Amino acid sequence: MNTIGILTSGGDCPGMNAAIRAAVFAAAARGMRIYGIQCGYQGLYDADWEELTPEKVDDIHQRGGTVLRTARFLPFSDAARRKGAIRQCIRNCRKNRDAAGNPNPIEGLVVVGGDGSFRGAFDLTKKNLPCVCLPGTIDNDIACTDETIGYDTCLNAVCAMVDAIADTARSHDRCIIVEVMGNMAGDLTLYAGMAAGAVTVVPEEGYDLPEQGEMSAEEVARFDGGIAQAIAAAKAAGRRSFVVLVAEGFTGKKDKNGRTRYPGGMEALAKRIQQLTGVETRADVLGYVQRGGKPSARDRILAAQMGARAVRLLAENQSNRVVILRGGAVSDLGITRALHMPKKLSAEDIALAKSLRYDSV
Amino acid sequence: MNTIGILTSGGDCPGMNAAIRAAVFAAAARGMRIYGIQCGYQGLYDADWEELTPEKVDDIHQRGGTVLRTARFLPFSDAARRKGAIRQCIRNCRKNRDAAGNPNPIEGLVVVGGDGSFRGAFDLTKKNLPCVCLPGTIDNDIACTDETIGYDTCLNAVCAMVDAIADTARSHDRCIIVEVMGNMAGDLTLYAGMAAGAVTVVPEEGYDLPEQGEMSAEEVARFDGGIAQAIAAAKAAGRRSFVVLVAEGFTGKKDKNGRTRYPGGMEALAKRIQQLTGVETRADVLGYVQRGGKPSARDRILAAQMGARAVRLLAENQSNRVVILRGGAVSDLGITRALHMPKKLSAEDIALAKSLRYDSV
Amino acid sequence: MNTIGILTSGGDCPGMNAAIRAAVFAAAARGMRIYGIQCGYQGLYDADWEELTPEKVDDIHQRGGTVLRTARFLPFSDAARRKGAIRQCIRNCRKNRDAAGNPNPIEGLVVVGGDGSFRGAFDLTKKNLPCVCLPGTIDNDIACTDETIGYDTCLNAVCAMVDAIADTARSHDRCIIVEVMGNMAGDLTLYAGMAAGAVTVVPEEGYDLPEQGEMSAEEVARFDGGIAQAIAAAKAAGRRSFVVLVAEGFTGKKDKNGRTRYPGGMEALAKRIQQLTGVETRADVLGYVQRGGKPSARDRILAAQMGARAVRLLAENQSNRVVILRGGAVSDLGITRALHMPKKLSAEDIALAKSLRYDSV
Amino acid sequence: MNTIGILTSGGDCPGMNAAIRAAVFAAAARGMRIYGIQCGYQGLYDADWEELTPEKVDDIHQRGGTVLRTARFLPFSDAARRKGAIRQCIRNCRKNRDAAGNPNPIEGLVVVGGDGSFRGAFDLTKKNLPCVCLPGTIDNDIACTDETIGYDTCLNAVCAMVDAIADTARSHDRCIIVEVMGNMAGDLTLYAGMAAGAVTVVPEEGYDLPEQGEMSAEEVARFDGGIAQAIAAAKAAGRRSFVVLVAEGFTGKKDKNGRTRYPGGMEALAKRIQQLTGVETRADVLGYVQRGGKPSARDRILAAQMGARAVRLLAENQSNRVVILRGGAVSDLGITRALHMPKKLSAEDIALAKSLRYDSV
Repeated sequence: MNTIGILTSGGDCPGMNAAIRAAVFAAAARGMRIYGIQCGYQGLYDADWEELTPEKVDDIHQRGGTVLRTARFLPFSDAARRKGAIRQCIRNCRKNRDAAGNPNPIEGLVVVGGDGSFRGAFDLTKKNLPCVCLPGTIDNDIACTDETIGYDTCLNAVCAMVDAIADTARSHDRCIIVEVMGNMAGDLTLYAGMAAGAVTVVPEEGYDLPEQGEMSAEEVARFDGGIAQAIAAAKAAGRRSFVVLVAEGFTGKKDKNGRTRYPGGMEALAKRIQQLTGVETRADVLGYVQRGGKPSARDRILAAQMGARAVRLLAENQSNRVVILRGGAVSDLGITRALHMPKKLSAEDIALAKSLRYDSV
Repeated sequence: MNTIGILTSGGDCPGMNAAIRAAVFAAAARGMRIYGIQCGYQGLYDADWEELTPEKVDDIHQRGGTVLRTARFLPFSDAARRKGAIRQCIRNCRKNRDAAGNPNPIEGLVVVGGDGSFRGAFDLTKKNLPCVCLPGTIDNDIACTDETIGYDTCLNAVCAMVDAIADTARSHDRCIIVEVMGNMAGDLTLYAGMAAGAVTVVPEEGYDLPEQGEMSAEEVARFDGGIAQAIAAAKAAGRRSFVVLVAEGFTGKKDKNGRTRYPGGMEALAKRIQQLTGVETRADVLGYVQRGGKPSARDRILAAQMGARAVRLLAENQSNRVVILRGGAVSDLGITRALHMPKKLSAEDIALAKSLRYDSV
Repeated sequence: MNTIGILTSGGDCPGMNAAIRAAVFAAAARGMRIYGIQCGYQGLYDADWEELTPEKVDDIHQRGGTVLRTARFLPFSDAARRKGAIRQCIRNCRKNRDAAGNPNPIEGLVVVGGDGSFRGAFDLTKKNLPCVCLPGTIDNDIACTDETIGYDTCLNAVCAMVDAIADTARSHDRCIIVEVMGNMAGDLTLYAGMAAGAVTVVPEEGYDLPEQGEMSAEEVARFDGGIAQAIAAAKAAGRRSFVVLVAEGFTGKKDKNGRTRYPGGMEALAKRIQQLTGVETRADVLGYVQRGGKPSARDRILAAQMGARAVRLLAENQSNRVVILRGGAVSDLGITRALHMPKKLSAEDIALAKSLRYDSV
Repeated sequence: MNTIGILTSGGDCPGMNAAIRAAVFAAAARGMRIYGIQCGYQGLYDADWEELTPEKVDDIHQRGGTVLRTARFLPFSDAARRKGAIRQCIRNCRKNRDAAGNPNPIEGLVVVGGDGSFRGAFDLTKKNLPCVCLPGTIDNDIACTDETIGYDTCLNAVCAMVDAIADTARSHDRCIIVEVMGNMAGDLTLYAGMAAGAVTVVPEEGYDLPEQGEMSAEEVARFDGGIAQAIAAAKAAGRRSFVVLVAEGFTGKKDKNGRTRYPGGMEALAKRIQQLTGVETRADVLGYVQRGGKPSARDRILAAQMGARAVRLLAENQSNRVVILRGGAVSDLGITRALHMPKKLSAEDIALAKSLRYDSV
């Protein structure tokens, strides 16, 4: 394999640039050429790419987001258009020419993104464009890897923000309920809560959440009741301020009718908790500030290890693989298997987080 | 004057603890006693205080919020109850006894807070409890001082968050509209925008904003139009991502009917801008993370200078003063005069911020 | 087991407080009492301790260092005095009384520290004071665990500082050689270098380092030559500024005659490199700023998991254990076995770090 | 004036890039062209420059250091060569041609740097190349301005590092003596100490410091004695750990014989203080980490205001000016006058810093 491409897909995350840099250096070290494809699969479809060299990417690893940009590519999620779109992508790769005008087909692809992005890679591999995927998302919601690129940076950001919010909660004797990113995965919420000593509610605690529409009245009552009980216990133990972290799967994700699972979202939740507990309560959505920013050392290192491995796998003609962190070490796994693993959250750590809260003792 | 009190009032801000610490050290250096009053004027009304010593406050200056806590004290804003409440506060101060049970009246008061808090201090001074006020709020919305304690820390926080958000905007070719704190003052919005190169909209640009209810359709059209025009110009100049900062006075402050001045608040604004510009647009409210956190060096220094000056003024039997930063130096001013100064925002800096944006060249 | 103690020993590190907090909460959850012992084994010898409660430690996890303080305890490293000292420690634990004056012997001990501290725990266990150890050091130089408490925070700090130093190196077309902590372990140096794209030199690359005195002239020549070659290669590839990280084992640790292994330490090294490369070169020792500061989310989580596990092990009457992170999960190991494992650094990662540098392509 | 140049000179500092960006945007807004000159006056001598546009500099304001690089230019400090060098610089500016090959002389110059750099600007102005200077240095050692670009960022960095070091000092019951940058100006030391509550020693306290060679034995004794006394007083007041900040003018600046003013520098100082106080004492030199890093919001704003003003002054045919911050507002001053102002440090603030320390009460 002489020439490969790399693209970033799905939501951006810190560390994507470090992965790109590592792939470019690894390719150069093997004498391979590497093209940076713009805007995810859209750029593959539009043949929008340029050759990358160590010089061009030497300083990007410190920066958040992705210099290759990222976008949703609708044809891949539309059964009627998918086949044609894949063909077009493959054709573009085959027809590639270098700066001098010589044929220089792109023979393999590194895809950095969430598991939605892995499906596109799987389809391309089937049509003979070998792909290797890297898990890149702040949400840590990819089952096959213990950790995704971007997660550690985001966890630090959320933890620091919860520390700051706790200053205000304490100064005003208030409860502040904070919505934390993570989609349907509670990792960010749970572990930021464990790090900060905050009350947490995550989908993995056994909530029966609808795909569309609102939670049942029973689920809402259970949800509210859990928080209210924690606050009551902490109050009884002498606390006057409270920080509660809620995973965005409950309050932040809207269905096509604009409804969140928790009826009314964060504002409604804060009102209900205030009624139930008698504590002045405010809602706070952390939002985009969780996603950007300089990657942590750990994310840069993970990205470097994973980016280099992806290039090695392609160089060794292995494909249809996802690079993962498992058991403390970087390895890899077939995409199909990766996509069929159930995402879990440690029940032991859910219990541990609870036991570190002031209301539990 | 042998014994004084100190309280923090209004919204908490970083640097309040540094001001408390400085006042305690300054009092100790003069052989004065100082009591820390809990929860603002509420604690004065409830005689909820304890003596502070350098030992007790030695490490608090690094922490956000206020160790004395803060609260709204409703009787002071209720004409019917104010008089009685003030009398009660004064009586409590006179009746204070030290730990040994000896009479130890509180003879003066340092008040750290916003200009709402200054009015209470003015009333207490009139009833012979000498007060000196320090401006403490992240909003920088106190006319008499060039800078309030807490503003610099918050400005740094907002600026860093806008940098992070710009990473995501760039990665996705999006416009992200960010609501920044500051109440009706555009300082945080304008200067964070100048520091980060973002588009800004502040009330001081001549918007005719209603006290209650929504902006007129003309004002809304002008508001939307200004943002859309900036984006169109930047697009024409080759940019694909945009960050717009909007002061919370437009979208974040609700009247008693729950209406924001900009109809529908941030979500509605993002939708409108997307329609007008054709650029995918998202809304983001920074929220509480702007308020807490470690104070910056500048805020700690300002708080130290102001806290020490307040104690000196009381020791010299000056009262009814606000300590201010004016012309680069700390000085002081009568409360009455301070409360009657109009708050301004530099027109020159509004123009400068505009000229540093990509759409302006 | 009804009552246990906890102490921190060796150099302080971020996360020690989070471990203490977790142990206190875990003890409370099991109805056990826990005493905080001051200044490491010194406090055990002096019976200098006080009972800890969740209330007392609720806010300590955000702070660097250790609220229990730490110190070297000489009698434990002095064969003549060790036996007596251990007996005294054991006796103090047995004689402990609670606040009400009732007998309340300390029956087990949690020790947070480096592997020097583990030896003391081993001796105490042999004399029937069951001990469980947690690895706490920024150096990550404990063989039995993949990661120590404090390492992740320090790695982030070093990485951020190297980013900042690179700004200055670039602005001045200079080489800056940076001494990084880690004792004889190259972990901090290697991984910070990998994260930042800097040249690194670590003891684990096969240097034959003397316990006392200076490296041989051959080793010095090899050392200098490696750095000079990397700079020459990067220069040839078009770079004008260079950052080199050197593990403190070479230049920062002095023998009893005040000699560092690299003759003359950092200043001499910078001069030599300037002579060899013709590039203006400066030396920079990061120093203490690597050790303090707020623990990262990861360190707080690891500390929480380890602290809770230590208490569980004691409650289950297991002792003489070290809690470790191995294969991505927290588990535990016998102290004897832990102390006999050889410390390694991944040869693959040493090669990877090299390949990510500009001089290697 | 149609075309100007900009260069950065002297030590790099955070905010230089924000000043460059502002100058480029300001020039573009006036329809002027602006050239970025590499490596300070060296690039003027070598005609090493390229045209800058808003597009090229749009993202640089977030980054530390200077994208134009900086260097010492020896001919300007060598009487024999200065005249010829200035003539060569002027000639290069006159002969400049644009990308299309048309004559495009550089008619004015913005110089960002310390007061050494101002002298070169003064000489160029005399030879009819109008210059306007901006004060850019972390040291805040330029008499004519209340604040230099870079100072606020550095002050925050030093303050945060002192906080971290205090964690370690407290954990080990130690004294840590920290050398802080600032050349012969004590601003960074004094105000970081005021912000952090540390003991400080600055040249402005009346030390009689030699240009070359070591302080007299009497000065050394006075120096040591001041620190020892502060520690003794704090010890008496119950403290067990101490952080002392010393300005680098004493211990860090070497004369041509390699001697620091304080004999033996930081290591010797730490030993002496340990002897005098009986407290275990360590030395720590903060070093380069003080200089790089993202500029603070305040530094970016100051740089923007100053950069825009410099271009306006040139556009209005004013020259030989230094842009300054005075009395809280940006204005400007003749270079000659600027160079003859004596640098002072507020005696009131020296006293205030002392009074906020634990040893003073």
